[in-house]
Amino acid sequence: MSRAIRDLSGGSAEMLEIFGDAAMVKHALAFEAALAEAQAAEGILTADEAARIAIACAQLPLDTETLAAEAAHAGTLAIPLVLHLRRSLGDEALADKIHLGATSQDVADTVLVLQAKMGLSSIGRELERLKTALALLAERMAAVPMTGRTLLQDASPITFGLKVTQWLTGIDESVVRLSRESQQGLMLQFGGAVGTRAGLNGKGASIAANMAKKLGLASPILPWHARRGGIAGLACALAIVVGASAKIARDISLLAQGEIAEALEPRVQGRGGSSAMAHKRNPTGCQIVLSAASRAPGLAATIIAGLPQEQERGLGGWQAEGPVLADLFVLTHGALVALVPVVEGLEVDTVRMAATLMAANVGTDTGESEYLVRAILKARS
Amino acid sequence: MSRAIRDLSGGSAEMLEIFGDAAMVKHALAFEAALAEAQAAEGILTADEAARIAIACAQLPLDTETLAAEAAHAGTLAIPLVLHLRRSLGDEALADKIHLGATSQDVADTVLVLQAKMGLSSIGRELERLKTALALLAERMAAVPMTGRTLLQDASPITFGLKVTQWLTGIDESVVRLSRESQQGLMLQFGGAVGTRAGLNGKGASIAANMAKKLGLASPILPWHARRGGIAGLACALAIVVGASAKIARDISLLAQGEIAEALEPRVQGRGGSSAMAHKRNPTGCQIVLSAASRAPGLAATIIAGLPQEQERGLGGWQAEGPVLADLFVLTHGALVALVPVVEGLEVDTVRMAATLMAANVGTDTGESEYLVRAILKARS
Amino acid sequence: MSRAIRDLSGGSAEMLEIFGDAAMVKHALAFEAALAEAQAAEGILTADEAARIAIACAQLPLDTETLAAEAAHAGTLAIPLVLHLRRSLGDEALADKIHLGATSQDVADTVLVLQAKMGLSSIGRELERLKTALALLAERMAAVPMTGRTLLQDASPITFGLKVTQWLTGIDESVVRLSRESQQGLMLQFGGAVGTRAGLNGKGASIAANMAKKLGLASPILPWHARRGGIAGLACALAIVVGASAKIARDISLLAQGEIAEALEPRVQGRGGSSAMAHKRNPTGCQIVLSAASRAPGLAATIIAGLPQEQERGLGGWQAEGPVLADLFVLTHGALVALVPVVEGLEVDTVRMAATLMAANVGTDTGESEYLVRAILKARS
Amino acid sequence: MSRAIRDLSGGSAEMLEIFGDAAMVKHALAFEAALAEAQAAEGILTADEAARIAIACAQLPLDTETLAAEAAHAGTLAIPLVLHLRRSLGDEALADKIHLGATSQDVADTVLVLQAKMGLSSIGRELERLKTALALLAERMAAVPMTGRTLLQDASPITFGLKVTQWLTGIDESVVRLSRESQQGLMLQFGGAVGTRAGLNGKGASIAANMAKKLGLASPILPWHARRGGIAGLACALAIVVGASAKIARDISLLAQGEIAEALEPRVQGRGGSSAMAHKRNPTGCQIVLSAASRAPGLAATIIAGLPQEQERGLGGWQAEGPVLADLFVLTHGALVALVPVVEGLEVDTVRMAATLMAANVGTDTGESEYLVRAILKARS
Repeated sequence: MSRAIRDLSGGSAEMLEIFGDAAMVKHALAFEAALAEAQAAEGILTADEAARIAIACAQLPLDTETLAAEAAHAGTLAIPLVLHLRRSLGDEALADKIHLGATSQDVADTVLVLQAKMGLSSIGRELERLKTALALLAERMAAVPMTGRTLLQDASPITFGLKVTQWLTGIDESVVRLSRESQQGLMLQFGGAVGTRAGLNGKGASIAANMAKKLGLASPILPWHARRGGIAGLACALAIVVGASAKIARDISLLAQGEIAEALEPRVQGRGGSSAMAHKRNPTGCQIVLSAASRAPGLAATIIAGLPQEQERGLGGWQAEGPVLADLFVLTHGALVALVPVVEGLEVDTVRMAATLMAANVGTDTGESEYLVRAILKARS
Repeated sequence: MSRAIRDLSGGSAEMLEIFGDAAMVKHALAFEAALAEAQAAEGILTADEAARIAIACAQLPLDTETLAAEAAHAGTLAIPLVLHLRRSLGDEALADKIHLGATSQDVADTVLVLQAKMGLSSIGRELERLKTALALLAERMAAVPMTGRTLLQDASPITFGLKVTQWLTGIDESVVRLSRESQQGLMLQFGGAVGTRAGLNGKGASIAANMAKKLGLASPILPWHARRGGIAGLACALAIVVGASAKIARDISLLAQGEIAEALEPRVQGRGGSSAMAHKRNPTGCQIVLSAASRAPGLAATIIAGLPQEQERGLGGWQAEGPVLADLFVLTHGALVALVPVVEGLEVDTVRMAATLMAANVGTDTGESEYLVRAILKARS
Repeated sequence: MSRAIRDLSGGSAEMLEIFGDAAMVKHALAFEAALAEAQAAEGILTADEAARIAIACAQLPLDTETLAAEAAHAGTLAIPLVLHLRRSLGDEALADKIHLGATSQDVADTVLVLQAKMGLSSIGRELERLKTALALLAERMAAVPMTGRTLLQDASPITFGLKVTQWLTGIDESVVRLSRESQQGLMLQFGGAVGTRAGLNGKGASIAANMAKKLGLASPILPWHARRGGIAGLACALAIVVGASAKIARDISLLAQGEIAEALEPRVQGRGGSSAMAHKRNPTGCQIVLSAASRAPGLAATIIAGLPQEQERGLGGWQAEGPVLADLFVLTHGALVALVPVVEGLEVDTVRMAATLMAANVGTDTGESEYLVRAILKARS
Repeated sequence: MSRAIRDLSGGSAEMLEIFGDAAMVKHALAFEAALAEAQAAEGILTADEAARIAIACAQLPLDTETLAAEAAHAGTLAIPLVLHLRRSLGDEALADKIHLGATSQDVADTVLVLQAKMGLSSIGRELERLKTALALLAERMAAVPMTGRTLLQDASPITFGLKVTQWLTGIDESVVRLSRESQQGLMLQFGGAVGTRAGLNGKGASIAANMAKKLGLASPILPWHARRGGIAGLACALAIVVGASAKIARDISLLAQGEIAEALEPRVQGRGGSSAMAHKRNPTGCQIVLSAASRAPGLAATIIAGLPQEQERGLGGWQAEGPVLADLFVLTHGALVALVPVVEGLEVDTVRMAATLMAANVGTDTGESEYLVRAILKARS
């Protein structure tokens, strides 16, 4: 995936590469190599055959643009890729032993899962940075009074630390969910044509376990070609991470309004300007996060809607899932990459907070705000 | 909620009652009574005051239709309800001690959570029945060969038991998620106007813990007025349960097609007929499940989209959440109530399965189908 | 449909009645009567038979609660309703002539369309009131300067009249779309079992035309059992009306923030209060509109997703459509009923607008604001 | 936009180019040139200044990758693009006259509209081909009897021509909507910072009209920065086109099932194969269309959800709109490009249709099927 100009929230170069074509082909070839090696371990191929296939996988020259066109024509990547692999061997007998017992969706799903695993690792790094920044901010602002606002009206006093603690807890909770769904969702796919692992002399389970180990994935007892709850759970967890991030961005952008001006995104050279108004300081970081949050629910819904797949492998629903999940990864990472520096460098005007609170005339009792901040920070330390 | 004629998937009387107006008011009054009693335990009210408030809560005559109109006018249920309560006491000094330190959303969210808890219990019962029926069917059909179908084309042989085991595993996995989200999402709400538990002499946390115990709920360290990830997680988990159920309904309705006729919904007196064609035997149970699955993704997306709530309590987003979550509960339960008897009474034509498989001319090797069925059944027993 | 307490945006009693069970049964009986009379006109029934059927339809005692349960069991309303009708005649020969050549979906769709027609009429009345209020406000505020705000930052001056003119134009444009879609979408359904109008001696088209006339509907050349683009177009048009309304509510709620306070919802006795804070004046009207706008996109998406219905009549997708469309009508009307008085009674603080503008220090040039207001008002007068 | 390997429904090279980065920059430069020339016509710039700006626009070397990164950093394309333009002039005084009175969103929206216009033209061509193919097929099959199926059950006879006529009418109706929404939605954007056309000596309207003419677009009386109903209407219309196309794909894929086999996608060399089963003939064309239809509803919902934009220009909602609309165009075109040859080359087995009908034992009366086909074909000729 390349960064489109239009897609201002289109994510980091890092995530675009993880879900890019080159990575996709690389993982697909790793699948084929792992399959051959695992089959050699079970005596289905010889060690030499497996080694030659693995070398072919490692050395196959890639032209992702051509492959993309061929895959679109064939309806699946595996068909042209396996064809190129077979041709590259120059040995028809061996060629027939590539992709043995596997089906296109085995490759497609395993590739998706390998990409997701790397994507989650990148997202995890940003979430750690975000949590650290939020915890520091909550600590610093634990006792700083400000106006609490409900239904967009001035309501009663809180401390800014309490607001930040709410943000932090929202992120914490969404990380727990994401972590659980990752464990449930990231498994090897290997089932063959209809998920029966036929034609493998009853060695299917062993081959799957071995492949999973080689590829660094968990191995499911049962293939999951048409059982997509794990992917749906992962998609929802990502969308909720985006929502919890956008809660922060929503609040900051409201606090940054000219008449409130209690907190502002940090100045970043060349960001947030206006082509029409030199004085503007737009909350561009928040914009990216809110834009991602506008898109995530529809993407999650699309994946949920695809669950009632037809029979052993669906038509249309599952083919829609991959690009949608990739979009969710790109948006989630893009949102976090935009949000982290906003929180790290947030310009907080505590004097203004005090002044607006006094002007709002809603009292000064911040209740148990500070206590709640300390309790949460202590509980999570 | 009453059952609308149009809403053929509108759920069981049981779930409509759980999320109905009478239940809602009952839970709201239980909240107020628990609040008074918990405050008495902390010396904020006297025991006598709390007892009189609890009696008033227990005895308040309900007119849900009037309350609905008043709530719609006020923008929240708590305002008219607390007013009625106060009036019923005939004691102005005591009246002021009702709802002390609480806000409307404390009531609304706690009521929602109490309803959800009961709803999950009903859903859990149906899921247990479904799992039992599926496990029995998988066992019986473990070795019955049939045509595996991919992309809506005849592909390779499977056993019917393997297909059922896939259904079962899909349900099992969605139950695990639902159970986790229930634990994360079902907590008391008690934070007062802006979530600071102000005006309670620093006793807020104790009061919350005590209330939670009385109401049979977990107590969060932190109020969650504008932190809705738990609700979103629960909504997604319900939607995925519906999707996993609809996967079963999709398959059965495809198998029930006249030219395939390998499995049929059981005949139910007066169900599945046609007003135009006496011979028809419509898959009405599957229809209800698939209809629910058409609606669930949009509902889940709506709740995810509401996550970036404004400041301490949002405007519009959270008010939309309650009715949407209620719809999800009703649809989920309705789908399960429809699906359970379909699976329990499924008419399977194993002779026809064998015949279609032979006609499809796709071989007879069912691979590790039976092994996989046994492995799963053993692993979950 | 009754108003649920939870559903604060659950719409007017008026719309709940239009889409209520009693109305639904009434329309269904009107369908059967019109069918009999139209068949009499073509000589398929005698005039006397048609008259007796029409009388039976007019006199059938209704118990909507029982019917709802029966319809849910049967999977369609028409089956139990026609059964009750037949029994009420006490004449088996005549009983067989009821519902002749029709199918359940003919009834269901025609009922939906009759309800939609009445619903659109109610919505149209509110839209007229809204347009009138907006035009008056735009006129009055044409030259009143205020701060224009972009990306939630103070930007450059506009006049308040220009902002209101944008609101008005948004409503105007959405009304044009709604009107077009109404014309395209509101047609009689009459096709029989598979849309062929079989068993009617080739008189199907004439019968359809006659029925449509009696029921005040357009008559399609072709039945539309599985061709739901018209319904989808109508759903989208309603969702866009809600969105255009919520644009107004969004702006007003932002202007009503304590630190801006340039425009406020009118005070309504008993509305917008807080159970925790006596000073609060919540934008409850805006809340209802924004809440509706949170729900409308998911509902529209559900109906769009249902378009690829199976064969001559779908399974699951179309059964989901009716209740979802009904929800959209209720939400749209509820939003408008809430918004109209907000706009009619909007409290505008023009002095404050001038002061905030000066404080924002973004100049005073309102450009062609006033000209644009006048141009639009003139063009639409 | 480049074709991602994963995105098997990722659309034609044609549409990817129309919405690609190079096209985007080209249109943005055309906007700036048209603006300068229109301002010259009103005496705001000299003819010479405008000519030099137009030349600079024509000659600016493009590096879309760098621009994408710069735009993502700045939060908008216009800022870096105008900067490059200004630098390329080597004349500071003239440089200040570029982009005069315009704002970033003027450029972004006009670019989007120019791309949409070209995209609609491509889509229109495919729709014409589809309609032609469907009309021919309907004509040929007008009297061919087959089993009508409802709720996935054999129901009553129809002719295949009637089914095709339903498909055709669905497309016809969706084309009417798309055409209307195109007219309503495809307008120049030119309003300046807050939509007041300030700083242009009252010449804003004339400049806008002139620019619109140069760019081949309609000119709105009123800028539409935060009034997005036109875009939402267009998005819905596209989603409904996809849905009407997917209705065809759904039916064909059901008819192509092995046990029915009444119609099959044409064989295309290298398409529809299986990496695991040589005998498979997958309905890959239908798959692409159904996959697009899985994604379109969530995309349309995202755009509808963005309608309540904040004040004069929104934060997050509108930035999400562009990439989502681009996705809709790509998916719509991709679906049509896949569907047209399926319909043109559909292999219809009329003998099998007759045989399955006889086996279904649902009679032989196709009612007014043929009459309805002829009536529709005549009405549209």
